[in-house]
Amino acid sequence: MPKLGMAPIRREQICRAAAAVIAREGLPGTTMRMVAGEAGVSTGMLNHYFSNREALLTQTLVYVTERSQERYRAAIEGLPPGRGRLEALLDSVLGDDREAVETWHVWINAYGEAVRLPALRSTIEERLDEWFELLETALEGLVPLDGDRRIPWTWSVDALLSGLAIQAMTSAAELRGEWIRDEVVSMVMAGAAPPAASPPEPIVD
Amino acid sequence: MPKLGMAPIRREQICRAAAAVIAREGLPGTTMRMVAGEAGVSTGMLNHYFSNREALLTQTLVYVTERSQERYRAAIEGLPPGRGRLEALLDSVLGDDREAVETWHVWINAYGEAVRLPALRSTIEERLDEWFELLETALEGLVPLDGDRRIPWTWSVDALLSGLAIQAMTSAAELRGEWIRDEVVSMVMAGAAPPAASPPEPIVD
Repeated sequence: MPKLGMAPIRREQICRAAAAVIAREGLPGTTMRMVAGEAGVSTGMLNHYFSNREALLTQTLVYVTERSQERYRAAIEGLPPGRGRLEALLDSVLGDDREAVETWHVWINAYGEAVRLPALRSTIEERLDEWFELLETALEGLVPLDGDRRIPWTWSVDALLSGLAIQAMTSAAELRGEWIRDEVVSMVMAGAAPPAASPPEPIVD
Repeated sequence: MPKLGMAPIRREQICRAAAAVIAREGLPGTTMRMVAGEAGVSTGMLNHYFSNREALLTQTLVYVTERSQERYRAAIEGLPPGRGRLEALLDSVLGDDREAVETWHVWINAYGEAVRLPALRSTIEERLDEWFELLETALEGLVPLDGDRRIPWTWSVDALLSGLAIQAMTSAAELRGEWIRDEVVSMVMAGAAPPAASPPEPIVD
């Protein structure tokens, strides 16, 4: 049955179109009709795959996140633990190409909706789990990851990174990707410094 | 002319209602009709004050921000510079009462829209300027505020704070306000400890 066989490709085509529209128009400005037009399918076809905006947003979030995470993995593949690996990951996340920008925009819009949509919150958490694993790999050897912090290093690094990226996207402030990268690296290195009284201990095992 | 005299009160009443609806429904789920119902005015009256959603969102952002900033100012008034003053500000920002939560929700929703709406970006920047002044007051004596950092301390503190608050609101992760406060204070204190009267040392790699 070729129709079923085509389904995943069609879904991906629609999610790719939805990501472009959401990045350009914002989520409140995005209609199902606009996404159908961008994808080159009928609204009937779009509704066949995604019965409502929430389902479309959720799958689009999954789509852009998986697309980006593949790039992040490739960016740090084969690099040894250390500052260079963290910088490579951050450079990939902070890229200014279309795919990277779309990922940020879809995420920012999803945050606003996640506050009221439990299903979207679950999806966000699953995607964040994978992202945190990647981040943990990039932090290996730089900070003690199994320490007794109440807020894990991965969460704080993600928060500073996302917070600065949101500032860059939502204000006219000059805030370059490499500055954000260096700021995040600085926070990590400052936190990695051992207490002055005790001798430096190797973190790498 | 009593009608004109009432206008500011009516506008405030509408913005207060809009904040409640946006916090509850998210911005894409918020209609002019819902806001009119919440405010107890006709849609005609609502349209008289706010001709479109963008104008309503922008004024609502200004409203919740000014309302919160008054509280923040009161929270640190009379406190001497130092860690206690920073903590008092953060506790006020991270409060879990209705007004504090509404401010966060309206801001998160505004971020998504700001990407495509230059007028909203300008409003965000003006409000951030006032917020950064408050934050600078709270950071006084803790970090060198006139240093040559490419990203000012106020921006990084705001980014970590907002990033963690967004995580708390959009995921099921346990992330208490006081943990977020302590994490932000830790970042500040880690960055605040330069060897007295000696030149800045390069970050060890």
